[in-house]
Amino acid sequence: MPKPLILIALGGNALIQKGQKGTAEEQFANLKVPMRQIARLSRDYRIVITHGNGPQAGNLLLQQESCREVPNMPLEIIVAMTQGQIGYMIESSLDRALMEIGVTTEQLFVSLISYVVVDEKDPAFRNPTKPIGPFYTEEQARGLPYVMARTDKGFRRVVASPKPLAIVEHREIKKLIEMGFIVICCGGGGIPVIRKERKFRGVDAVIDKDLASAVLAGEIKADVFIIASDVPGVSVDWGKPAQRQLRKVQRAELERYLAEGHFPAGSMGPKVQAILQFHRATGNRGIICHLADIERAVAGAAGTEVEAISKMHLTVDGGAARL
Amino acid sequence: MPKPLILIALGGNALIQKGQKGTAEEQFANLKVPMRQIARLSRDYRIVITHGNGPQAGNLLLQQESCREVPNMPLEIIVAMTQGQIGYMIESSLDRALMEIGVTTEQLFVSLISYVVVDEKDPAFRNPTKPIGPFYTEEQARGLPYVMARTDKGFRRVVASPKPLAIVEHREIKKLIEMGFIVICCGGGGIPVIRKERKFRGVDAVIDKDLASAVLAGEIKADVFIIASDVPGVSVDWGKPAQRQLRKVQRAELERYLAEGHFPAGSMGPKVQAILQFHRATGNRGIICHLADIERAVAGAAGTEVEAISKMHLTVDGGAARL
Repeated sequence: MPKPLILIALGGNALIQKGQKGTAEEQFANLKVPMRQIARLSRDYRIVITHGNGPQAGNLLLQQESCREVPNMPLEIIVAMTQGQIGYMIESSLDRALMEIGVTTEQLFVSLISYVVVDEKDPAFRNPTKPIGPFYTEEQARGLPYVMARTDKGFRRVVASPKPLAIVEHREIKKLIEMGFIVICCGGGGIPVIRKERKFRGVDAVIDKDLASAVLAGEIKADVFIIASDVPGVSVDWGKPAQRQLRKVQRAELERYLAEGHFPAGSMGPKVQAILQFHRATGNRGIICHLADIERAVAGAAGTEVEAISKMHLTVDGGAARL
Repeated sequence: MPKPLILIALGGNALIQKGQKGTAEEQFANLKVPMRQIARLSRDYRIVITHGNGPQAGNLLLQQESCREVPNMPLEIIVAMTQGQIGYMIESSLDRALMEIGVTTEQLFVSLISYVVVDEKDPAFRNPTKPIGPFYTEEQARGLPYVMARTDKGFRRVVASPKPLAIVEHREIKKLIEMGFIVICCGGGGIPVIRKERKFRGVDAVIDKDLASAVLAGEIKADVFIIASDVPGVSVDWGKPAQRQLRKVQRAELERYLAEGHFPAGSMGPKVQAILQFHRATGNRGIICHLADIERAVAGAAGTEVEAISKMHLTVDGGAARL
């Protein structure tokens, strides 16, 4: 009987917290909190780690806009660079955390470059909405070869955020998990590619890392899917006197809150969608929790959890019986 | 009986050729030549690919020097970023080349983030000689927190290039090879780390990618180790009337040429050292060839080759008998 499998999606703030510029020292220091927990969890669980890349990609875009001597790289390559950077930081932090608790030679782990298939006909390509990179004046914005949007702090490039369909390396990742590797992958939601006949081609887009992680968690049939960021869980009636955080919740109830518009599109919305999508695909536990609460969330004692459908439910619940 | 194992170390010019700025289009176009050959070779051989990162790291350093709003990343992270970037470009180019020849679903392959252990007491740290990044005026150079060297085009940052000792992920890479994966790793010679008691720490240094590849080729006991770049092989008496290119050569002969100073320190020297080091460790074939000649070199028909020590030699040759 293999150990249960957990996929942990780390928010961008696992590395760069609000108000920080993002020095290497800050990023390594921030990683200690989740990595020490993940190192301890690795004794009893098989682990896959995914991560965001928003601030790091933003920094690279700002650097390349500041330098006319070097050709600008397309967004797919910027994402690839952040996978290298953050993959290394996570891997070496995990290495250190494992050594601290005495797990050294036996545990194998790797960071993989990952790309994710999106549909060329995804409506997101006709209506790019995801702001990335630096702010510009209106005059600067006119001279740039990008789709630009006006924001309250100036003009900003917007790109498509299409729906992730499949992780290209999912077979490789499955094999690695089977062999007991801890796998770090799907950084920044994956490098976006479209499939043209039988060939892949990178596209200028960004993929939501929680939705990509949900696709992967479904493909590898994770027993638990955790989205860890700087919020302790999902709240309804946010900012109102009736505000309350959800603890354990049925999928249908969470779906209703989502439909009622309780969760903002740019932040909690995709996290809730990701957990629901995973639960529809597997019937397994999906949890949204704080980065400091990963172990407690696995123990069922923190975060907002869509509970697993039990074996008994599988025989009576139409949705889950399709599994 | 598994298929023979080839490690192919691609020079930086596999992606950016002399005179090119290094746009993404140029890099993908240049990769077609080696990747189509490697795709065909993968039918009969197990494959590991390593690669340089000089021009890409230089571009990132130039970009970060041009932008004061974003914290500079240390060299270890710059190397990690280029592993992501180039790993993705190689992986997707190989994917495409495999599909062109009809190898699609069965072949597994991954690009790994890799770090390489160096010795904190390596004399290279006391005498940094490897120039990296942009050129500066003397006045600019004075204000920078780096060791700077005067060159004929201005001042330039110099860093240590310590000797690679071990690839941290060598156990992972061995497992992946056993399972039939094509592995892309050790980009830019690997992310340099030192081992302090039981913990790794990144250091500001760069590792020669041919020497790191030789360490890996020895660790995985490659049957053939190929260094492919823009030169067709190793020449003695370079630039003199007696200049001639070596085809098949005994190790002792190549060692003598190296000792006689036939090979410049910055270019052919490390390649020759790498091939010799691999041959001393394994007795197996080591070849230096042009990027367009990889298949012919494997067939024994191109490049400069230090030939394998045959089984018969193994019983009589003291050096090889230690294997």
